[in-house]
Order: sequence, then C-alpha cells, then structure tokens
Amino acid sequence: MTSKRTIPARRFIKPSFNYLIEKKRDGQEFTQEEIRYIVDSTLDGEMPQHQLAALLMAIFFANMSAQETAILTEEMMLSGEVIDLSHIAKPKIDKYSTGGVGDKTSLVLVPLAMAAGVVVPMMCGVEHDYIISPLDKLSAFPGFDGNQSIDVFTKQLARIGGAIVKQDDKLAPADAKFYALRKETGTIPSLPLITGSVLSKKLAEGAEGLVIDVKWGNGSFIKDLEQAKQLARSMTRVGRSMKRRCVALVTDMNQPLGDTVGTALEVKEAISLLKGEGPEDLKELVLKLGMEIVRLAGVAGSTLSAKQTVQRHLTDGSALQKFKDLVKAQGGDTSYVDHPDKFPAAKHVRKLPAPKRGYVHTINAAFIAQGVAILSSSFDKKSKIDHAAGVSEIKKVGTQVKQGEPLMMIHYNDEAKLEQALECFKTAYRLAPKRPTPPPLVVERVA
Amino acid sequence: MTSKRTIPARRFIKPSFNYLIEKKRDGQEFTQEEIRYIVDSTLDGEMPQHQLAALLMAIFFANMSAQETAILTEEMMLSGEVIDLSHIAKPKIDKYSTGGVGDKTSLVLVPLAMAAGVVVPMMCGVEHDYIISPLDKLSAFPGFDGNQSIDVFTKQLARIGGAIVKQDDKLAPADAKFYALRKETGTIPSLPLITGSVLSKKLAEGAEGLVIDVKWGNGSFIKDLEQAKQLARSMTRVGRSMKRRCVALVTDMNQPLGDTVGTALEVKEAISLLKGEGPEDLKELVLKLGMEIVRLAGVAGSTLSAKQTVQRHLTDGSALQKFKDLVKAQGGDTSYVDHPDKFPAAKHVRKLPAPKRGYVHTINAAFIAQGVAILSSSFDKKSKIDHAAGVSEIKKVGTQVKQGEPLMMIHYNDEAKLEQALECFKTAYRLAPKRPTPPPLVVERVA
Repeated sequence: MTSKRTIPARRFIKPSFNYLIEKKRDGQEFTQEEIRYIVDSTLDGEMPQHQLAALLMAIFFANMSAQETAILTEEMMLSGEVIDLSHIAKPKIDKYSTGGVGDKTSLVLVPLAMAAGVVVPMMCGVEHDYIISPLDKLSAFPGFDGNQSIDVFTKQLARIGGAIVKQDDKLAPADAKFYALRKETGTIPSLPLITGSVLSKKLAEGAEGLVIDVKWGNGSFIKDLEQAKQLARSMTRVGRSMKRRCVALVTDMNQPLGDTVGTALEVKEAISLLKGEGPEDLKELVLKLGMEIVRLAGVAGSTLSAKQTVQRHLTDGSALQKFKDLVKAQGGDTSYVDHPDKFPAAKHVRKLPAPKRGYVHTINAAFIAQGVAILSSSFDKKSKIDHAAGVSEIKKVGTQVKQGEPLMMIHYNDEAKLEQALECFKTAYRLAPKRPTPPPLVVERVA
Repeated sequence: MTSKRTIPARRFIKPSFNYLIEKKRDGQEFTQEEIRYIVDSTLDGEMPQHQLAALLMAIFFANMSAQETAILTEEMMLSGEVIDLSHIAKPKIDKYSTGGVGDKTSLVLVPLAMAAGVVVPMMCGVEHDYIISPLDKLSAFPGFDGNQSIDVFTKQLARIGGAIVKQDDKLAPADAKFYALRKETGTIPSLPLITGSVLSKKLAEGAEGLVIDVKWGNGSFIKDLEQAKQLARSMTRVGRSMKRRCVALVTDMNQPLGDTVGTALEVKEAISLLKGEGPEDLKELVLKLGMEIVRLAGVAGSTLSAKQTVQRHLTDGSALQKFKDLVKAQGGDTSYVDHPDKFPAAKHVRKLPAPKRGYVHTINAAFIAQGVAILSSSFDKKSKIDHAAGVSEIKKVGTQVKQGEPLMMIHYNDEAKLEQALECFKTAYRLAPKRPTPPPLVVERVA
C-alpha cells in the first residue's frame, strides 16, 4: 500500500544547519541531498526549531526555484506513506482548493466525477481560520464519519469510486512539523512552502491527476491576484515534475460562492445543485472544474464533450445518486438527501437590511465567514458546530437593493452571539450608487 | 552608578509575536513600544526562540529604519546597567573596531589618548573566530588581569584615565540573548542588528563619544566595502541620535595590519610604536584614529593641532608611560615594557619562502589569522594561548620578493601544528609579476 524512497543514498556529508540557513539567506539553491536532509532532520527533530524557523523565513524572502520546490514536495511526500491505487483500473483524479467562503463545490464535484467514471480519492486537511471544510459540512448528516483508515478509504474507492475523508496523519508527516512552525513564524504565505505542503499530501493520496482551484481575493488567504497566479503556476509545475496531470484555475473569492454560508445551508445548496438547480456562479464553477476533471481523466476529449458529460450527469440524477452512495458508505443518513428539510432549522431567521438604496459594490467574504463562524461556534474547531447557523439568500455583487431590503438572511440559535456576528455582516457589505462590474469567476487557467 | 529607563510606561497592549513577525516581514516599521516589548520579552524569555529567530531573519531581509535601529540600541542598552562617569571631569571617549588581523591599535591608542588628557573606558567583547582581542594580547604580560568589576573599572578610570577590561555581563544583557540566537540563525550580518549589538554595549560604558574603526576586506567579517560604509553610517547615525559624539573611519583589512600577528609579537610591535618606531601602516592608523579621539574630546580643535598633539605624545614617551600605568594598574609586570625581550620566544622560527619571484599581490588576512590561531591554539578561546606563537616580518602587498626570500617568519613551539598552519600561510599569499596598487588604508571618514 505504501512506497518509500527509491533513490539510493549517496555519500552525503551532513552540512551544519547554520550553513544551510546562510546558503538560502544568500539566495543560493539547495541540492536534492540538502533538501532531503532538511526534511529528515525536521521530521526527527534533529534540526532545532529556532534554526528551522530562521530557514523558513529565509525561504520566504529568498524563495525556492521550481526544481527546489519539486524536490521539497517529493521529499515531504516520501516522509510518510504514499497510497497505491494502481489496483483500481479507473482514472483517479483529485481536486484541491486553497479554500473559499461558501465554497461547496467539492460536495457536488466528487459525486459528479464519480458518475462520469472517475475515481476521486479526496482527503481534507485542517482549514485555516474561518474556512469550513467539506467534512465539516458533511458532518451535518447524522452518522456521517470522515475518519477512516487508509485501508477502509482505499476499499471504498474501489467499491464506489469516491471518498471524502480526513487527511491521514501518516501522509507527509514532515509537513505537519513544518506547518506547525510556519503558523507561529509568519511563514505561511511562502509560495514554495504552500506548494510543498499542499502537494506533498495531495500527491500521496494516490491520484494520477489533480485539478486545483486557487482562489484569490478578500475571502482567500491569497489577497493578491498576481500571487494566486504564481501559486497556480508553481503547483502545476511541481505536479507535472512529479509525473501527475495537473490543471489549475485561478478563481474569484471576492464574495461568497453561491447564496449560502454555513454547514447545513451549504449542504442543502449542494443538493439542489445536484438536482440541476442552484445559483449560477456555483453552477459555473462546478461545470468548469468538472470539465477539467473529466478531461484530465481522459473520459472526455474535447471541451464540448467534457461540457456535455458534466452537464448530463448533473441533470440526469446520476451525480445525485453517487452523492447518496458516498454519504451512505461513510455512515450518513441519506434520507436527508431526499428530504433536505430534515436538516435542523435555526430558531431565528432575520434579515440584514440594506442601510440605503444602491448596488452591492463589494462583499468582504472573510467578514461574512467570520460572522458565520461566530454564530455556529466553529471558530475553535473543537466545540460542536451548530449546523443550523449561517446565512442564506446572499445578495451578490452587482445586485440592486432598496433601503431596508434584505442583503441576506441570518440563521441563528444563540441570541447572545448575534450582535457580534451582525457587526461582521454589516462591515462586509459596501453599497454604491453605481452598478459595479462583477469580477470574473474564472480569471485564468494554468495547465 | 547605573541609570534605568526614564521614559514613562504608556498604555501599551501587547501584540502577539506573530503579529510582530508579520509586521516586519511585510516591511513595516516598529514603534518604540513594540521594540521595547521585543527586547523585554527576549530578555525574560517570554518570546519563544523560534519566533525570535524568524523575527531576526525578517529583520535581516526587511531591514530597520535609522529610527528603529536607534530605538533598538537604546532599549538594549537600557536592558542592563549603564555606567555613569559624570563624576570624572575629563572628556571620556572610547574606540571600537569591528575587528582586524594584526590590529594592535588599541594597545597604542588607549595610552595615547590618556596622555592627551582623554579618559578611555574600554571594554572588550568576545571576538569572532580568529580575531585576537586586545585582552588576549595584554594577557601576555604576567599578572595582567582584564576581569574587573564595574566599580574597580570606574575607580581605575578616575585614577589613571584608562582601562582595558572584559565587557561586563551586566551591560546590555538583552544583547547577549540576541547574539546567542543570531550566531545560530545566520543573522549576524544584519546591519541594524550589528549596530544595536555593538552600540548598546559601547554606549553603556559611559563614554561621551566614540571613534569607530569599521574594517572591510578579506580579514574582516565585512567583506564588502559598500556594506562597511553603510555600517559606518548606521553606527554614527545611531550614536548621534543617542547624543554621543561619533566618528567612524572605514579602513582596509585586506592584509594584516602592521608586520606581526600573534599575542606577544603584537604587544612588542605596539611597544615599539609607543617608542616612536614601528611599521608605517600601523602608525598611520594610530595617528588618524588618535586625531579623531582628541578632536572628539575637544582636546584639539584643528586637524593640525590634533596631529601635533598625537605625534607629540607618541614620541615624547608620555603615551608609553601611560601604557605602563595601565598595565601596572591591572596587575601586569611592567618590566616587560622596558625589556620586551623578556616575552617568551618560540622554540622554532622559520621562514615562509616565496615560491617564485614577483610582487606580493594579495594577502588573505583571514588565512594568516587562522594559521596563527592554529599555532597558538587560540581557536577555541578556552585553552591557554601560546603567547610566543605567531608570524612576524610580514611582507606587505606591493613588496617585491625573490624566489625563496621569506614572505614572513613563523614562530612556533609545537611541530605538530606547523603543517596545517603552513597550509594557511601559503594559501594566503598570491604573487604576481606586476606591482599592484596597494589599497588605501583609510577609505572614508563618516562623521
């Protein structure tokens, strides 16, 4: 099930950590042996934390070449188990998103790809701050279990063609060490370190290809479009150098995706999409990402056939059926799929009134997400999530509103949390007298 | 005897260390309160080492403004005792050098300034790598003691006008914490950190003015002339902002200074200079630094009168007498000053023969110093120094030599160490058929 390093150990004289720090500080490129040594000594704790911290900051400033980043990714991947799915004959493609507000695409895409004959081995890591992971959302189904052993995960993939589970700690354990330190040393935003962190785990999941959604904007941790483009290029380049098919879309995250934010509300929106309904922006992104998946998988050749394949499975109920299969396989109550009104409703629903007439000019998606995190107590990732809490009927950028008209509906159970959440929601919206040009959803495709 | 912070504590909400790291990483400027908080939390260990390491590397890359550097210096200085010499009426000027090979100027300058009526409160820190500190040199005098309490130090200053002692741990203790971490994290060469480290200690010694010798070249830890100039500017700027008179000379360290390297050999050379003899380059630097000292002290007004003052004290025996006073005050046997042949001689003296005829084109001073460190076992700063070991009669850059003629004389007691040292000496010398232009000794004056 797992494979380990195959590169023979060459004669390598361990350099001092000081030497390695100074080498990177002075803008030089690490050799493969040096990167492997850094990864190994991080994993076994040989490299003191303060020296690793200095090295990470040096990498932030001095960067890493494409080759260094590829080596770092591979060495981190090889620090743990690498799942072998070669016994599954179907094409195996995964999807990764840098994380967005209201982004429920995975819940639709995974069953959609499964319906098209693509195996999707999706493992979800811990999301940063206010981002709700697909697993948090799926946990709205009573009984749903995202904690699976690699063995159970692999068997489910062979049986039904898809799984959405929690990332296994045995995958790329070196990254966990790097990441814990990056969080405390201001080195999260380093492109090569992000690339290595994400891909070392994703590529250990056994997929042959990866579709990446790099989000940029106020709701993403990448605020800068240029940086998002660079990350997309860095990831696809490394993916290719590791012999995986890779495509990245740079997409807009300057407002929530779809009309809802909150676990159960988002699941309901995903189900409506699987029934051929749902908001336009969400549908567009699902279609575009879905087309990339089926093309990477070789299921569809041309753009047209890819589009037709994806649209067919979204409307003929086959993706919906696969969604039920997945929920059922992981212990969830599928009756909620047929009857989404079974999801618990919030005790209170109230509107966020528009303070004046005008057009929705900007929505700070991070503030929306923070408000929802407050209402659902999902901030600390430990307390039980209030699945009913969230916001719906979000008026998107470019929408005209009258004074007092709802900008969105707020669902909440705990009165005490409302005030603080309201502050976030109010701050998130900016109205203007002129209609703004809504930002394009897909900015760039990097292949 | 000591003074502490006088700035009133304002209401200051402690930021997270993460915030501080990210602020510097993103090129922003720290406030006074933030720098004070960083210094305080470094001193009391509140700031974890890995976060401080990341912050130091961020400072290396993102730099600090002149104002930040001045605040850092002041806060580090105020982290410990600040010696008050205001009860001594005479002008108090210190000298600091970034460290050079064969640099025995302090041994001459201190008594010279004393003879001119200037009080010199010199404390020496631990020198890097192969650099021999003035205290190491003075320890060639039997009985000499460089370890003095601040109280004894101050009394000696009042009594004879000068002292050369080991830096007291009570001065700028925050710097010791920073420095220990900088050594392990590749952040030694940061200009603001160097400035803060050096000046926080130097300005705590109670001097009203400081003459700084910033050395650049293959024998200095600053290899780049432009960087040396920047450091000179940074130091004088911070010194001035802390209300001290400051002058810096940027001087050449692309070959040893004077004709000798090694503790006793250098002391003997210093004594000959105090008797009006000695090599030209050493004499020139002593004159120029001495002129800066007497002018900063207000003892001499014009350049001409400064030059006359310094030259007079060098030739009339008054500086020599002050040197004896100093050695005696610190327990050393002054009969060695009158009879330098009392210093132990090495068992073996052999020449380093020129491998071919030509001109001395370059001398790598660091290699010379390393060879001497090997012969005198002074590398680890712990074992007893072999005072007799060293090199003399160094042929300087521009000198013409015949094949087999000595490039220098090697003094050693331990045959076993010779081979390795010889390798250093041979590597240090490059001969060329054409006479090179010797580099200027004083490149720039920064006031």
